[in-house]
Amino acid sequence: MTDETPDTLLPVTERTRHRRLREQGSRSRADLDAILSDGFVCHLGVVVDSAPMVVPTVYGTDGNTVYFHGSVAGRSLLAAPQTTVCLTVTHVDGLVLARSVFEHGLNYRSAMIYGVPRAVTDHEEKLYGLRCLTEHIAAGQWGYARLPSRKELAATALLALPLDEASVKVRTGPPDDGDGPDAGLGLWAGVLPLHTGWGKPEPDPALDEPVPVPPHIARLARRRPHPGQQL
Amino acid sequence: MTDETPDTLLPVTERTRHRRLREQGSRSRADLDAILSDGFVCHLGVVVDSAPMVVPTVYGTDGNTVYFHGSVAGRSLLAAPQTTVCLTVTHVDGLVLARSVFEHGLNYRSAMIYGVPRAVTDHEEKLYGLRCLTEHIAAGQWGYARLPSRKELAATALLALPLDEASVKVRTGPPDDGDGPDAGLGLWAGVLPLHTGWGKPEPDPALDEPVPVPPHIARLARRRPHPGQQL
Repeated sequence: MTDETPDTLLPVTERTRHRRLREQGSRSRADLDAILSDGFVCHLGVVVDSAPMVVPTVYGTDGNTVYFHGSVAGRSLLAAPQTTVCLTVTHVDGLVLARSVFEHGLNYRSAMIYGVPRAVTDHEEKLYGLRCLTEHIAAGQWGYARLPSRKELAATALLALPLDEASVKVRTGPPDDGDGPDAGLGLWAGVLPLHTGWGKPEPDPALDEPVPVPPHIARLARRRPHPGQQL
Repeated sequence: MTDETPDTLLPVTERTRHRRLREQGSRSRADLDAILSDGFVCHLGVVVDSAPMVVPTVYGTDGNTVYFHGSVAGRSLLAAPQTTVCLTVTHVDGLVLARSVFEHGLNYRSAMIYGVPRAVTDHEEKLYGLRCLTEHIAAGQWGYARLPSRKELAATALLALPLDEASVKVRTGPPDDGDGPDAGLGLWAGVLPLHTGWGKPEPDPALDEPVPVPPHIARLARRRPHPGQQL
């Protein structure tokens, strides 16, 4: 929570109650929003023939609903859209290197969103959802690239999942064995941070003549670039 | 495939047959090995009360078996270890920014491994599996940190999943609409690469006196550091 707006609490359900590592559980809606805002790839879990299937895919959100492509798990979701899914977004922030192997772990932020996705069929809502998805990933791109034709829109299966039921977990900080008996071992302990950053935009070799990188893409690349990198 | 060793083909099953975006499907065992080698966090899918549950967790592998903690999805896996799981590892390499919204996508490498995990109960095998897990994440740490006590080992639920059934997908390169009618729009198109790198090791503030960062951690941090970063 870095925001000035008052936070709200996520509801607790049988699925989202934190059973394990409760100290890492968060009920903060602001934490959920921040995790979704910081990412654009989720792992979507569906049940196919009684077995789980976990597919990486992009998502976007308007703060109330998560939009994602239904075709990624086509066999299941399109055949039976009234199926519960689990959509998980994870950010790995670092390795927690403790004095004992047992206390090793990760610094991370993750959100698991449960629900029954709804197939978006209305033309206007589909455009709205695809716009959310596109702008969430690369703000400005919806106004720059060619928008979907009616035929492309019809070929796009878009699903909408409400942000009603979510389980959030966050771990930050140093290892937990700094005040235990292992502290006397004299071993180094700490965190090895992991960072993700955009590289320099790579123009399509098929561009016949040089086209400048549009300002919104240059801005996006600058937002979280590698340290020391020049755009 | 960057290796000199001959590649083998992954078997095709009902679950791993590529139905969608077949050009992104790979049957290369070397691709699978490289994806597993490049990562240490997976998204584990299990079925709980007929609904999917997708949990991020760390993994390690010795090339034949993937080891991971059984406690992460405790409710399901420990109660019924004879349950099929889907363990997915994904690397996101960049945004594919096409001329049309419809052609947008990701450059990525992902592996979905299916199977029924086996609970590791034998003392020696549990040590072996935990060593694989630890060394996969931070090579050298098993020989540096305090090893698990009998009590800690008993409290650790370790699962083993064979690398027998896997579906691999890889996308690389520029957008696909460089030779279509949209190429004439004169828009910029290309890839915005995404990189992941280690930051500078952060010592635990609880360290009473300065302890040097052990060489294997300094080496790990140097292996994929942010450009321009000094260790």
